[in-house]
Amino acid sequence: MFASRIENLVESPVREILKIIDRPGMISFAGGLPAAECFPRFDYTSLQPCHLQYGPSEGDDRLREQVAQSLCERGLRVELDQVLILSGSQQGIDLVAKLFVEPGVRVAIEVPTYLAALQAFDLFGAQYCGFIADDPKPDGTSLTYAIPTFQNPTGHCYSSEQRQSLAAACDATGSVIFEDDPYRDLVYDECDRTPVCSYIKEVDWVYQGSFSKSYAPGLRLGYLACSKPLVQKFVRLKQAADLHSCRLSQQLISTLLDTQDDRDLIGFYQTRRDSFQESLQYTFNHIAEWQQPAGGLFYWLKLKPEFAMDTRLLLQQSIAAGVAFMPGEAFYPAGSKPQSSLRLNFSHATPEMARHGLGLLAGIIETARTGRVQQSNSV
Amino acid sequence: MFASRIENLVESPVREILKIIDRPGMISFAGGLPAAECFPRFDYTSLQPCHLQYGPSEGDDRLREQVAQSLCERGLRVELDQVLILSGSQQGIDLVAKLFVEPGVRVAIEVPTYLAALQAFDLFGAQYCGFIADDPKPDGTSLTYAIPTFQNPTGHCYSSEQRQSLAAACDATGSVIFEDDPYRDLVYDECDRTPVCSYIKEVDWVYQGSFSKSYAPGLRLGYLACSKPLVQKFVRLKQAADLHSCRLSQQLISTLLDTQDDRDLIGFYQTRRDSFQESLQYTFNHIAEWQQPAGGLFYWLKLKPEFAMDTRLLLQQSIAAGVAFMPGEAFYPAGSKPQSSLRLNFSHATPEMARHGLGLLAGIIETARTGRVQQSNSV
Repeated sequence: MFASRIENLVESPVREILKIIDRPGMISFAGGLPAAECFPRFDYTSLQPCHLQYGPSEGDDRLREQVAQSLCERGLRVELDQVLILSGSQQGIDLVAKLFVEPGVRVAIEVPTYLAALQAFDLFGAQYCGFIADDPKPDGTSLTYAIPTFQNPTGHCYSSEQRQSLAAACDATGSVIFEDDPYRDLVYDECDRTPVCSYIKEVDWVYQGSFSKSYAPGLRLGYLACSKPLVQKFVRLKQAADLHSCRLSQQLISTLLDTQDDRDLIGFYQTRRDSFQESLQYTFNHIAEWQQPAGGLFYWLKLKPEFAMDTRLLLQQSIAAGVAFMPGEAFYPAGSKPQSSLRLNFSHATPEMARHGLGLLAGIIETARTGRVQQSNSV
Repeated sequence: MFASRIENLVESPVREILKIIDRPGMISFAGGLPAAECFPRFDYTSLQPCHLQYGPSEGDDRLREQVAQSLCERGLRVELDQVLILSGSQQGIDLVAKLFVEPGVRVAIEVPTYLAALQAFDLFGAQYCGFIADDPKPDGTSLTYAIPTFQNPTGHCYSSEQRQSLAAACDATGSVIFEDDPYRDLVYDECDRTPVCSYIKEVDWVYQGSFSKSYAPGLRLGYLACSKPLVQKFVRLKQAADLHSCRLSQQLISTLLDTQDDRDLIGFYQTRRDSFQESLQYTFNHIAEWQQPAGGLFYWLKLKPEFAMDTRLLLQQSIAAGVAFMPGEAFYPAGSKPQSSLRLNFSHATPEMARHGLGLLAGIIETARTGRVQQSNSV
């Protein structure tokens, strides 16, 4: 007999799609995979026998100190003791859910939001209260989950006013803020990226970052920083979850952070973003609306009213044609209505493949609409 | 406001002690740390850029296949699809707890048992039903957690009859068996190590192993295998917990499993066990009783009646004298009565240091008794 939470355990659509994108010839706009061309050269000679032994649950102090220092430089004043190294930032969501979420607890989330956060919160029985950057709604919630910088999936970056307003709303209502910031370093246009947590005056807060997007996801390494009353609880939760994170990964990242990183990661991604924008204008101008993202890895497309549809219904056909994308529906709580939206990753495919794939995808959407119009005419 | 499960979140005593054992000169019998002398030489040149990318939640297929094959050789027939790579076997306990445990659920556990399993089950609200190898008691429980081979902390290895009897009892009562098997490969005397799960006929089962004890804990890598109805649920739970495990660790272990491992790990540990036995006989014969373990990393000492005491009360004094050990109380559910027992790791300290440390520890126990006798005489 399973625990009752298992009723809420659903397969992630991303996972299903990720299985498919390895097929030869598949053009994938589906995942959030960093471009393999941009992986750093890790110094494996820095790995010593001492890194093979058990280590502290909090993480290795050298890396914690580096994280604390980088957060201070961004305006979030934290000490080493407030930093916990994670086995990827997905783990932070699991730990936060364990700490705050149980059946009946309301969580304020941006709509749409990161789907694997929904998955983790769902497991612990969360109920949701949706909000957008202009109108935070923490009232009556225990927790407010937000991705203020290059949001997944919309790409939105909160303005300075929106950041301060979210912090003030959490302070006013006592909703603990959980700021998820994995895309922060992938910035192409100037914008305010000050952590919302740095504006918090009263309430407890959790900030998390990742080494997956700007370094390498295969290392499974991220971190969280939090207000002091939460530290000990997170350490215990981390210990019960996996004792501590991979020490090789910690050592490799720590060494890399100390050296000059000579990759032109931002330039590479910016070029891809810009050429994707051009291809989108060429292929999708009459079908959808979108904002060019100032950072991150995604374009978020909203189909024009005459093309409105549940984009999940397009996915199978699209994959058969060799193009994978993420239907917008995946980023809304279960039971939400169809959203006529798509998330497109611009970093993985080459500009030529992207243009080709976008053309195919636009054609499929147009055909679906034509079919529907014909069908409704024939009724 | 925290979720109510947080009331059950307690600090692990091991963790507190592990912080201390790094002090220069400390002789530690406390942890379960593998001897650093025995770490394998990993082939870091086998790490390729592809291992830096996201990977499947189930783990890399090559490693899953290697695990499946090794389990088949031990009598547990599993296919690749039934194997899930874990971020250390502590993660398996977290996933099993999520799947089965909620407030009111009864879990059958060996008493004493692995303390960090208690910690993980506690968090999800488990109630316990204690058993010993001779008398399994799965009635009325959802889950039976056992470490049949070189149990932690007692070192006990189930006989063939005890293995079959535990499996039959689980089958008869419908209690899912969760077999934790991290010490399996550290075997010094001949004994039956057939997985209990291989005798299961009816009920669902979970078997887990670790690469921490026979290879290196810093890689944080383990695995579980389970009956087919559970596979998909574990994959989803794993995905929500940390997406997937470190791919560098997976590649390093996978490569190592393919090569001839020329470390004389068993010989090294066996020598330490034997010399520890000699030192114990010299220092503890009048104070405690114990069985020499046929494998694993621990001696379990039961103080003789005239020395009966709560060994937690000795710990501070012992650490001040430069010797760390694990009080037996840590391995019993919260609220159990004092146990007059100690767990001593024999693999970490050199034979000379171990003998010196055991002498110190015996002295502290004798002094504590003398003090108590004098105190009771003076009352």
